[in-house]
Amino acid sequence: MALRTLSAANAAALDKELMSTGAYSLDQLMELAGLSVSQAVYKLLPLNKGTRVLVACGPGNNGGDGLVAARHLHHYGYQPAIYYPKQNKNELYQRLTTQLHALKVPFVTSLPNPLTTSTYDLILDCIFGFSFSGSIREPFPSVIAALASTTVPVLAVDAPSSWDIEHGPPSEGPGKDYHPGALISLTAPKPLVEKFRGRHFVGGRFLGAEVAERYGLVVPPYEGVAQVAEVPVDGEGKL
Amino acid sequence: MALRTLSAANAAALDKELMSTGAYSLDQLMELAGLSVSQAVYKLLPLNKGTRVLVACGPGNNGGDGLVAARHLHHYGYQPAIYYPKQNKNELYQRLTTQLHALKVPFVTSLPNPLTTSTYDLILDCIFGFSFSGSIREPFPSVIAALASTTVPVLAVDAPSSWDIEHGPPSEGPGKDYHPGALISLTAPKPLVEKFRGRHFVGGRFLGAEVAERYGLVVPPYEGVAQVAEVPVDGEGKL
Repeated sequence: MALRTLSAANAAALDKELMSTGAYSLDQLMELAGLSVSQAVYKLLPLNKGTRVLVACGPGNNGGDGLVAARHLHHYGYQPAIYYPKQNKNELYQRLTTQLHALKVPFVTSLPNPLTTSTYDLILDCIFGFSFSGSIREPFPSVIAALASTTVPVLAVDAPSSWDIEHGPPSEGPGKDYHPGALISLTAPKPLVEKFRGRHFVGGRFLGAEVAERYGLVVPPYEGVAQVAEVPVDGEGKL
Repeated sequence: MALRTLSAANAAALDKELMSTGAYSLDQLMELAGLSVSQAVYKLLPLNKGTRVLVACGPGNNGGDGLVAARHLHHYGYQPAIYYPKQNKNELYQRLTTQLHALKVPFVTSLPNPLTTSTYDLILDCIFGFSFSGSIREPFPSVIAALASTTVPVLAVDAPSSWDIEHGPPSEGPGKDYHPGALISLTAPKPLVEKFRGRHFVGGRFLGAEVAERYGLVVPPYEGVAQVAEVPVDGEGKL
């Protein structure tokens, strides 16, 4: 059975619905989304105290999910570091940042060049999410080039950054050859998953059966209390 | 080693600190607290589709934790029902209630008499939490009497309702003989745990090492990504 996917327009509509008639706050949804991301990390990379995770955050909601995930990773015992070159000034984002400062999670101002496993064991790509428009402003072209060429395993959040949400990898630019080893789709997979080959997770366990059906989705096969489920895509899983 | 506990005054101070300099919203803290409660239920009562959980909610934050827990229980596959006789009119609580209505989680307006396992498999006591003042207004005296006499296993959230936060069970009134089988302490145990004999969990995984130390606490022994940890108290565990 093909995966049911959510177009960029429907993902925006569903988010809007969850926060209006659904009565969720962005705080709540982002907390649960970021928690799911942190649990996907745990599935990918068994916890050893000191495991180093670089959380690369963009200026929007995808970056906010990364900030939340980093906090949970700290509590699990990972050593997250945040790269967040264009910080969102909205109150929620400032609070998420303050929470990380209080835990002494470091913020780094540049990426090592080359970006290798001598510095990090895993990278979270939280640069762009489902509202990515296709234009990539500085400093993100070089960030995406670094993600595309790194030897460090990458988990992309909602979308490999710079991929078109409907059609997948761009035909030119720094993301042309960017194929992260793992992806976590939040709420539901986006059409780009058809072009993705790697381990695929779904998170954001707040979708009720009625809403899912109305958007042509299925509730992912979460087990027990897990906030994340692994969902095979075609092709072989690898990190 | 004796459990480190948090007095009612310090619990209030810590909550206030988390929401001021800590930069957490009540939304966030309640989401994580309620999630912990739902995971404690899962540890107590293995999931069979159709397992019935009565979530008895008071008008304050303890009731809000219950509303969040009920939503997660629904997503896990339990069948929660909400008893919420004095509904909080604040915006956050109205939103939490709306989220449950959207999932078609039923709200019941009275408790069965007698309250037995023919109707429910577990009860969550979310009536009063650490800010309990000692006065119990209608309709809660009869609710606590029902909790004290029920044959249904009870998981109390933060405190068995009507217990004094410092000293434990009251010497008179409907809670005099109320000894729930399980307790989940949120953020940290309160002094009443010294009088509690049953299975004891801790939840609310947002306490950093620095804050914990400053309040004379230890970060509970959470494993992996768990949002709840079981912490032995003296005496034999039972549900």
